[in-house]
Amino acid sequence: MKQLKIHSQAFNYPIIFEENLSAKLVELGKKYKIHILIDKHVAKIYKDVLKEKKNYASIKLIDPIEDKKNIQEISSYIEYLLSNNIHKDHKLVVIGGGLVQDIGSFVAHVLLRGIEWIFIPTTLLAMADSCVGSKSGINVGKYKNQIGTFHPPIAIYIYLPFLKTLPQTEMVNGIGEILKHAFIKDGKSFNFISDNIDQFGKNQKISGEIIYQSLLIKKEIVEKDEFEKHLRKVLNYGHTFGHALEGYTNHKISHGVGVLIGMDIANYISLKKKMLSIDEFNQMHELIFSFTKNYKVQINNYDTYMDFLSHDKKVIGNEVSAILAKGIGKIEIVKTKLDVKLKNYIKGYFKHMENKS
Amino acid sequence: MKQLKIHSQAFNYPIIFEENLSAKLVELGKKYKIHILIDKHVAKIYKDVLKEKKNYASIKLIDPIEDKKNIQEISSYIEYLLSNNIHKDHKLVVIGGGLVQDIGSFVAHVLLRGIEWIFIPTTLLAMADSCVGSKSGINVGKYKNQIGTFHPPIAIYIYLPFLKTLPQTEMVNGIGEILKHAFIKDGKSFNFISDNIDQFGKNQKISGEIIYQSLLIKKEIVEKDEFEKHLRKVLNYGHTFGHALEGYTNHKISHGVGVLIGMDIANYISLKKKMLSIDEFNQMHELIFSFTKNYKVQINNYDTYMDFLSHDKKVIGNEVSAILAKGIGKIEIVKTKLDVKLKNYIKGYFKHMENKS
Repeated sequence: MKQLKIHSQAFNYPIIFEENLSAKLVELGKKYKIHILIDKHVAKIYKDVLKEKKNYASIKLIDPIEDKKNIQEISSYIEYLLSNNIHKDHKLVVIGGGLVQDIGSFVAHVLLRGIEWIFIPTTLLAMADSCVGSKSGINVGKYKNQIGTFHPPIAIYIYLPFLKTLPQTEMVNGIGEILKHAFIKDGKSFNFISDNIDQFGKNQKISGEIIYQSLLIKKEIVEKDEFEKHLRKVLNYGHTFGHALEGYTNHKISHGVGVLIGMDIANYISLKKKMLSIDEFNQMHELIFSFTKNYKVQINNYDTYMDFLSHDKKVIGNEVSAILAKGIGKIEIVKTKLDVKLKNYIKGYFKHMENKS
Repeated sequence: MKQLKIHSQAFNYPIIFEENLSAKLVELGKKYKIHILIDKHVAKIYKDVLKEKKNYASIKLIDPIEDKKNIQEISSYIEYLLSNNIHKDHKLVVIGGGLVQDIGSFVAHVLLRGIEWIFIPTTLLAMADSCVGSKSGINVGKYKNQIGTFHPPIAIYIYLPFLKTLPQTEMVNGIGEILKHAFIKDGKSFNFISDNIDQFGKNQKISGEIIYQSLLIKKEIVEKDEFEKHLRKVLNYGHTFGHALEGYTNHKISHGVGVLIGMDIANYISLKKKMLSIDEFNQMHELIFSFTKNYKVQINNYDTYMDFLSHDKKVIGNEVSAILAKGIGKIEIVKTKLDVKLKNYIKGYFKHMENKS
């Protein structure tokens, strides 16, 4: 089985591509006292995964919706675990996507001042991206992701068959981050991803290899900057322009489409600023476009879009720390004024796209 | 000004004995954007401390009662800070006793995935003991202190004048831990504390020196075992028997009296187990007794007391990890059966005390 090792300030942990998850869970249940937090939809579809119920000290189904990723709801999970006599030596096994990961990671960090946890990601985004990095974000009142912790799991098991039942939107959410990693870091991984991404989801071996390559890139960045001081900020590539697009469309487009088009916008601005060559712009655009071509995204009111942009957390005063590209693998953070010039670049991007189609 | 430096895994931080707290707060307010969490009683008595209100980004009064040390209440403090635009570079200044410290430390740890905080303890217990160690404990539902974190402050300022208005019960709570530190660690600090403890509270210079010596001992233990794996457990000396006494008396006796008598019981058991000489028992007893003699503590039903003892978190199966003494500075964790023999030792202790008085 393929695996990587992530070096964290707390300890090192492996990511293991697991072929028989059911057997692995039984094995873990024999080794440790285990409490399971699992996405309720996953629990329903993959009943066999948890069939040996007597192996587990407790099982809690999580409803994976943003409105329940708050401190009140999470308190109730903690009370549930305490009522099931969770102890400092027990392990928490968390099965789900990024939202369930946020909850599990936070619970494991604060419960009994920290217990060990194991993560089994079930979405492509969680497998290829968010599982590495140890961050969690929880909502409090109207404030989104404003509390959180850094608490890596002791192990991550990736089980590719989960992808078979994943909705298309969720696939694109993962692809967005996979391409982002490829663009951030040139080299063997970029070549493998760009050469094979069209096969993603069709061939399990290739899917696994693409996820592995994506994780290698994320690993390199996060290991250099675990606590998000500077370098890790490049991982926001595509996100500033993407989030504003998600906001502008009232979340009619998914995060994945937002990030993909967001990178395309960032690249177009880079092209116009003469940072990026037209060849490189086109090379990246083609990869992006193969996943976004079915989504019609338009802007009618650029002032409203700029307003969404101005609320990004990377905005200080009238400047946004835009993450632009000098080439594949050459990402740069460029302080950019939120002015007419920027608005015209963005207008230019959408006009350019219209003319192409 | 006297100071110590505490070495923590995260970073090192100083404890500074501050003579002009008001000026120090003004200075901090000029250096950083500051948000204050303060015990509402302290805020009332020491109005002058916060007189320069415009220096602070926000001030939140905390009602320091156990029932409000829960995750719901703490969420409301976090929302308050977010509504006052708290930012990752701002500092949280926490002013109060151990309970306010628990809240402040937890908030600082999880808010925006960790911000820096400064602690100003206002009780003797917090000054001489709990301010070092970086632990926090928060209640969730009916479960006490079952969630928490390790998050040291960047600096601690000790301002002795706070002791002038501290209730006697609170003084004894601090004395309990100060004597505990002295008993755990033989040497210069023990000699200074035992020779001068009768002057505590009467002479500010001596009070300051006793707190300093107490902190030196706590520092040595916590630095060796920040995350409470083993050694730090000796800090529970007196607490197992003391907590059961607090429970038995339905909290009519304070934590300080509980810990003091708890140590005396532990020493008596050590004496009966021939671990401790009668001379050393008496030497420690006299120090303890000078602070407990005004409190009449009796047990009428030893089975009920044993029942409280059996609920201690250091009990596994039918055994308690009792923290006993082989001498001053020679503390040992001894697995002890919760049996008739132990009950008779405890009975023997109270009979012995009755005969003495």
